Amino acid sequence: MSDAPPDVEVSPAVHRTAEDIGSMEIRGAATIAAAAAEALGEQADVSDADSPEAFRAELRAAARVLYDTRPTAVSLPNALRYVLRDVEGETVERLRASVRASVSEFCRRLDNAQTDLGRVGANRLRDGDTIMTHCHSTDVLACVETAVEQGKSLSAFVKETRPRNQGHITAEALDELGVDVTLIVDSAARRYLNDVDHVLVGADSIAADGSVINKIGTSGLAVNARDRGTPIVCAAQTIKLHPDTLTGHTVDIEMRDEREVVDRETAEGMGDPEVLNPAFDVTPPRYVDAIVTERGQFPPESIVSLMRDLFGEGTTEPWAEA
Amino acid sequence: MSDAPPDVEVSPAVHRTAEDIGSMEIRGAATIAAAAAEALGEQADVSDADSPEAFRAELRAAARVLYDTRPTAVSLPNALRYVLRDVEGETVERLRASVRASVSEFCRRLDNAQTDLGRVGANRLRDGDTIMTHCHSTDVLACVETAVEQGKSLSAFVKETRPRNQGHITAEALDELGVDVTLIVDSAARRYLNDVDHVLVGADSIAADGSVINKIGTSGLAVNARDRGTPIVCAAQTIKLHPDTLTGHTVDIEMRDEREVVDRETAEGMGDPEVLNPAFDVTPPRYVDAIVTERGQFPPESIVSLMRDLFGEGTTEPWAEA
Amino acid sequence: MSDAPPDVEVSPAVHRTAEDIGSMEIRGAATIAAAAAEALGEQADVSDADSPEAFRAELRAAARVLYDTRPTAVSLPNALRYVLRDVEGETVERLRASVRASVSEFCRRLDNAQTDLGRVGANRLRDGDTIMTHCHSTDVLACVETAVEQGKSLSAFVKETRPRNQGHITAEALDELGVDVTLIVDSAARRYLNDVDHVLVGADSIAADGSVINKIGTSGLAVNARDRGTPIVCAAQTIKLHPDTLTGHTVDIEMRDEREVVDRETAEGMGDPEVLNPAFDVTPPRYVDAIVTERGQFPPESIVSLMRDLFGEGTTEPWAEA
Amino acid sequence: MSDAPPDVEVSPAVHRTAEDIGSMEIRGAATIAAAAAEALGEQADVSDADSPEAFRAELRAAARVLYDTRPTAVSLPNALRYVLRDVEGETVERLRASVRASVSEFCRRLDNAQTDLGRVGANRLRDGDTIMTHCHSTDVLACVETAVEQGKSLSAFVKETRPRNQGHITAEALDELGVDVTLIVDSAARRYLNDVDHVLVGADSIAADGSVINKIGTSGLAVNARDRGTPIVCAAQTIKLHPDTLTGHTVDIEMRDEREVVDRETAEGMGDPEVLNPAFDVTPPRYVDAIVTERGQFPPESIVSLMRDLFGEGTTEPWAEA
Amino acid sequence: MSDAPPDVEVSPAVHRTAEDIGSMEIRGAATIAAAAAEALGEQADVSDADSPEAFRAELRAAARVLYDTRPTAVSLPNALRYVLRDVEGETVERLRASVRASVSEFCRRLDNAQTDLGRVGANRLRDGDTIMTHCHSTDVLACVETAVEQGKSLSAFVKETRPRNQGHITAEALDELGVDVTLIVDSAARRYLNDVDHVLVGADSIAADGSVINKIGTSGLAVNARDRGTPIVCAAQTIKLHPDTLTGHTVDIEMRDEREVVDRETAEGMGDPEVLNPAFDVTPPRYVDAIVTERGQFPPESIVSLMRDLFGEGTTEPWAEA
Amino acid sequence: MSDAPPDVEVSPAVHRTAEDIGSMEIRGAATIAAAAAEALGEQADVSDADSPEAFRAELRAAARVLYDTRPTAVSLPNALRYVLRDVEGETVERLRASVRASVSEFCRRLDNAQTDLGRVGANRLRDGDTIMTHCHSTDVLACVETAVEQGKSLSAFVKETRPRNQGHITAEALDELGVDVTLIVDSAARRYLNDVDHVLVGADSIAADGSVINKIGTSGLAVNARDRGTPIVCAAQTIKLHPDTLTGHTVDIEMRDEREVVDRETAEGMGDPEVLNPAFDVTPPRYVDAIVTERGQFPPESIVSLMRDLFGEGTTEPWAEA
Repeated sequence: MSDAPPDVEVSPAVHRTAEDIGSMEIRGAATIAAAAAEALGEQADVSDADSPEAFRAELRAAARVLYDTRPTAVSLPNALRYVLRDVEGETVERLRASVRASVSEFCRRLDNAQTDLGRVGANRLRDGDTIMTHCHSTDVLACVETAVEQGKSLSAFVKETRPRNQGHITAEALDELGVDVTLIVDSAARRYLNDVDHVLVGADSIAADGSVINKIGTSGLAVNARDRGTPIVCAAQTIKLHPDTLTGHTVDIEMRDEREVVDRETAEGMGDPEVLNPAFDVTPPRYVDAIVTERGQFPPESIVSLMRDLFGEGTTEPWAEA
Repeated sequence: MSDAPPDVEVSPAVHRTAEDIGSMEIRGAATIAAAAAEALGEQADVSDADSPEAFRAELRAAARVLYDTRPTAVSLPNALRYVLRDVEGETVERLRASVRASVSEFCRRLDNAQTDLGRVGANRLRDGDTIMTHCHSTDVLACVETAVEQGKSLSAFVKETRPRNQGHITAEALDELGVDVTLIVDSAARRYLNDVDHVLVGADSIAADGSVINKIGTSGLAVNARDRGTPIVCAAQTIKLHPDTLTGHTVDIEMRDEREVVDRETAEGMGDPEVLNPAFDVTPPRYVDAIVTERGQFPPESIVSLMRDLFGEGTTEPWAEA
Repeated sequence: MSDAPPDVEVSPAVHRTAEDIGSMEIRGAATIAAAAAEALGEQADVSDADSPEAFRAELRAAARVLYDTRPTAVSLPNALRYVLRDVEGETVERLRASVRASVSEFCRRLDNAQTDLGRVGANRLRDGDTIMTHCHSTDVLACVETAVEQGKSLSAFVKETRPRNQGHITAEALDELGVDVTLIVDSAARRYLNDVDHVLVGADSIAADGSVINKIGTSGLAVNARDRGTPIVCAAQTIKLHPDTLTGHTVDIEMRDEREVVDRETAEGMGDPEVLNPAFDVTPPRYVDAIVTERGQFPPESIVSLMRDLFGEGTTEPWAEA
Repeated sequence: MSDAPPDVEVSPAVHRTAEDIGSMEIRGAATIAAAAAEALGEQADVSDADSPEAFRAELRAAARVLYDTRPTAVSLPNALRYVLRDVEGETVERLRASVRASVSEFCRRLDNAQTDLGRVGANRLRDGDTIMTHCHSTDVLACVETAVEQGKSLSAFVKETRPRNQGHITAEALDELGVDVTLIVDSAARRYLNDVDHVLVGADSIAADGSVINKIGTSGLAVNARDRGTPIVCAAQTIKLHPDTLTGHTVDIEMRDEREVVDRETAEGMGDPEVLNPAFDVTPPRYVDAIVTERGQFPPESIVSLMRDLFGEGTTEPWAEA
Repeated sequence: MSDAPPDVEVSPAVHRTAEDIGSMEIRGAATIAAAAAEALGEQADVSDADSPEAFRAELRAAARVLYDTRPTAVSLPNALRYVLRDVEGETVERLRASVRASVSEFCRRLDNAQTDLGRVGANRLRDGDTIMTHCHSTDVLACVETAVEQGKSLSAFVKETRPRNQGHITAEALDELGVDVTLIVDSAARRYLNDVDHVLVGADSIAADGSVINKIGTSGLAVNARDRGTPIVCAAQTIKLHPDTLTGHTVDIEMRDEREVVDRETAEGMGDPEVLNPAFDVTPPRYVDAIVTERGQFPPESIVSLMRDLFGEGTTEPWAEA
Repeated sequence: MSDAPPDVEVSPAVHRTAEDIGSMEIRGAATIAAAAAEALGEQADVSDADSPEAFRAELRAAARVLYDTRPTAVSLPNALRYVLRDVEGETVERLRASVRASVSEFCRRLDNAQTDLGRVGANRLRDGDTIMTHCHSTDVLACVETAVEQGKSLSAFVKETRPRNQGHITAEALDELGVDVTLIVDSAARRYLNDVDHVLVGADSIAADGSVINKIGTSGLAVNARDRGTPIVCAAQTIKLHPDTLTGHTVDIEMRDEREVVDRETAEGMGDPEVLNPAFDVTPPRYVDAIVTERGQFPPESIVSLMRDLFGEGTTEPWAEA
């Protein structure tokens, strides 16, 4: 069903990109998104469709080919939706130009997204502030970096983030930015929240109901931040906005290898218990003060409006056959 | 100032016990408490005081000698207070008998404390319940053990409890009791709280204002348990009730070796950040549903009444010179 | 004031529809909405206006005639607003086509609304989940039905919903869908909330400030669901979005016959007390996790954006005379 | 095990009382309590024990006989505990007098309990106040009655209290006291809480952890009262304080006949769902502002101190064999 | 950098307006906004640009000149953004017409804003309601005035609003509207919140994250209103929506003269303490039920959508050089 | 009814003290309490009662005479209750001695109360802490003074405390103790709560249900302190524990002169509004972390146990005729 109908021509460039995404040669949310958008642009470039309808059918077919490579990635459908969303024109030429403009706009925005986001997030930080981080997020680091560039002096409590200790990477990166770092175990977070001005976390993805899906431990931290009166901000580029959640889909939480939590020998020593190692958890919007994106900041409860603006309503798939 | 005045004779047995406590030969809250109580009993036994006043002075002096060995231990002053609290009698003989009775009562209670506490805690658990634990507490295990002996089938989520992973000991102990164990990292606790019937934690000590001082991470867990509607119970013998807190003293939180959190090499790799490794945190009473002791269960807000019943008002030190 | 000015011709078909709505021959939110939209379409079809202005004036007049039949209905103004909202064109013919397109779009969406909504709601439910319902809502049932069709096995606690016991209808409907039903009195809800994965309710209408107006008892249930950590979702088609509330109007709560609460004889036996029988109550948005519509799911705080997208700003009535 | 040992003589009067309690001839919490206390008094009167030890053994044996008739009743062990708690004396005669004094004191207090409680509760009510009630409680009515006698004018929202509509009895009783009554369904409570000065409920029993066990629906009402800023008071005589809960025992919630909820025919019409009809629920102390007893008012968190004062520590059963 | 490039002609009228704004001759949020919009209109009128690009460049230059006069004012950039936001046309004439239409629309809306807002706010008030006010806001008064005109009878608790007692002005204004006024000190607010149906406050500005910046004391009042179950509404025209906050900028809180708090002599008498006199504070959106604007009412969490609709995305400055 | 029966002799010294209390010659809570206790001691000294019963009757009569002078004072009945509570002895001489001992104990405790309380409160404060105060309380100052004497450096935010600006007195006193003072208006409190380690307030009186009655504004501050995660402590000597509240009596809140809020002329200028000027408000126990007394610290929920220990059950008046 997902293959393009035989009479619609999908460009070899699209197929190549699809293969590279499928084989993980192209990976990383932003890279996938850019490649997918570019592939649609190439489809438009090479199309020899003889009617607007045919041109649109080709575009949809190309999008389907790309989408089917990794339907659970978030940035991929976002890229496709963004490009297809407002392709307009009454001739093939105008449609082609419209696609090209849309692809350019998408890629330009994407290229600048982290920088733009960093500027927004940095504006919330004041000179002398102390932040607390969980896990490792380049979007969070972009906020800190810009703030530092603005001449602000910052301190940070860095949670180690068991089981994979991504906090160590964050600690190193913050240290390099000149931030004064204090490393703590995850359980010590509440004890220091009254000394913290902002909890700053990234996101794996963000749902239409305003929930933030992020590294396991985020939600417990957020509940405690609220209890202590400490604001909590999530920094996430818009390609993290999960389009499936517009239609109620829940985000599956990856269960990772139990060996990350305990090695086999130790586990056997304690009777080989079941080990559950969820990669992420879900923080309800009422515990998050703001979501910082490259398009500005939003209360989590209104992120759905941004999703719809950027990627369309969600109840229809723009690559569905007409 | 802490030595007995020259004209008051403190028994050599008391001095020996004091030395053993001071040199850590006698260690562990219950062992110290029992030894101190017994030493007061020995003082009473060997006393050749010729008046009730002299007898009482000797007792106070003996208590001072013992107290001064480790004034920050919690169980030590509790033992002394319990014994001295209601020594009564108008002759030396009656006083001696009264001390003896009090020592016996204290030691008998102490011997049975964990069993008695276990019975109280077990009564809160129902067949088929799932608990969540943090760190390792023999008082918690006593509750579970009794419940299992009552024929109740239990499951447990065991938090590993960074940095020292005492959860591993708990997991092994629960497994041996036949409890179905699931091991998780500390950050995963909130995710599973809706599947849990009771959070069950121990205590390092309990303050007069109802706060529970326990392993770092307890307070954050408690806040999340309240948010999820999951009851949280603290199991702690009454020798954990911190008498100094009756007079407003706060409990100093031990800061442990930073190497427990991160080894030197890794720390250097991330720019040698400050590492803070507090051993405990403080959970306010409004996040704890009940404190289970060998004297029954109490809402944390009324534990102060039990403290005063068992150990006296606290504003005076029974070993103070008259 | 509400009659069309004498010089503007309103089609007899519009008048007929207006009469049928006024006489309750046409009833039910969706039926009224569809009839009103179709009537505007008929007005456009038969119009012999000789200028765009005249055509628009006729349309407004027709809308006024329809609106005045039942100004407190919610779906009626929504239908009128939707159709009139973006009628565009610079000739009568283009305007006519635009109206027709808009009417078709509205009716098509309306026809599919419950199915589309059901799909969105079903996506939030997982296999094995337990829901709790209050009153009777076909939108809620649509979610469950789709979930069942997706192969998910569900259980339900059904509140009887005094005074009219609409829970009995829900219980029967759920049973027919193969859902495992447990019937409880309304007061027993809290006791079972920890066993529930989702509270699922419908809506009588939804206000611009995110409040859900639904069967009496909904707000008390929602507050308890929040306290227990149980998500609560409201399923409601967009024709339930109350346009008057955009401008601050509050929703009048119908007070129903006191005989629904207690029969006359029983009332007399207790001294004939006043009986208050409000049909609905108002649940503030902070107690609702998501509103599920046929256009996707929304946090209640952002439903106002959807209202404005679909039905216009609300501060002006599109049928007001120019 | 529960029979008195053969060599200890239990008075025939005690056996008669025990039989009457067992056969429900003696019923009602206060009546059972008084009868049990009196029976211990009779045992003391007729005892021809020749030593204090023998006298005490007889008393314990009598208490065991009484206790075993209905070990789940709450007032019965309370009566036994109260009387046995501080029996003192070094001769049989003194012990006999001590028992008699204790029995008299208990019965005198019990006789006056509702009046005394009513006075305490009435003191919280001001002229012109509006209360809200749930179910039917003579302790609540005693508060209202005294307030009315004090010349205070009161209004009441009375919840009907499904499934058995005990609210009707309350409505009638309040009407007879001259209170202005408004009857509502249970689900309408939240809607009127902002018009209410006090929620006033009784108790089936009260636990050592401060929980109030009362008619199903109480806890949900209490959570909403807190959310609305309305104080909630529980009126309960001290014979309702559940001694088993001192040792962690949970209170079993009676499941009542499902026919109270729905008749067979209606149930069949909806596919014969499971019906759960719990009689009571458990309100945590944090949702209750005060417990009003005949001994004064208490925050629920300190009711355990009153329990221990009146009925002893609870960890030992005073009727246990020495 | 902020001056127009030499080759772009900015109209003398624009320069005059800019000077008048800079010199505070033109002052007040609405007056500044209207003047700035009109100035852009004048620029369009007098432009003799020979290409659309040149025309646009002139407009941007004019906007820059105006913006630079008082970059911290909120209404000024809003006016500029509103006008420049959707200037469209492919000829200079069309662009000129588009600017004019936009200026007219903006000024018409602005002229009617308080009246329109008053109507929205009044719709939330019912006959007989009691409000509580803080400080002095003509937007709040507009709501009350309209409600009174609708025939509603209102009462008001007026907080005096230290240190400058603007409550006195509000009290007088409400009295003149026929509202029954009770004056209280700020600290007495909580005591009367249960007698209040709505807390009604204005705003100095409103941030994209839904925060309300208003007179010091608003946030503390809002937290207590939530605790008491009393709704709180903020009345604010859309020119108060702070565009810089879209990009994360925080709103600087003005620190006012300490002499407003305590005169010099009194201060010296108490040892000349530091005096902090912040003019405003920040109320997070979770404590505000609705924001009432002339465009309708919004939950604070969705005000960002309105900001973006009216004033554009915010991440780019429409007056930035192309 | 309150006069002593003619045949019971009340000492002239008692009558003199009663007159001095009644005429306000003796005033201030502690002074009244000491005088009343001493008067009972004098009654015991001069009594020539010829039986224990007669002696007790005289004491009760003396207590009645004293009590009737100012039945609404809190410290007066506390003094009487404390002394009469455990007068014991089987001869007049022993009773006399018992009264004397009790009077001495009461007065000794009272003399030291503020110092003892200060030590308890100081123990909660750490070097470098910042406190926030409301109104003026010598008990609060005692805590600070002791902390300063312990070598701790403290800062303070002092709320001015409208309408009477008692904050100015506090500011001066703290300044003299070497505390770094910042003066703010009451409304600015929330803004600075995140910079505060302890809110420290006194009490006018404390109720059995744990409520703190203190200067108007305390409750609103406490709610905000909880919201911000800042602990709040109430410092109050035990003579402030309100014995009438044991039996449910509510504490009448004094309404003070409206001229404290606004002078006549200003009031007339604003239409002469009603002015309400309550002196105190009531803070529920759930918003207070600890009550610090000279007997140690207590969670507010357990203060009732202390009241009962010190002053008896409260349901009977010890001066009631036998």
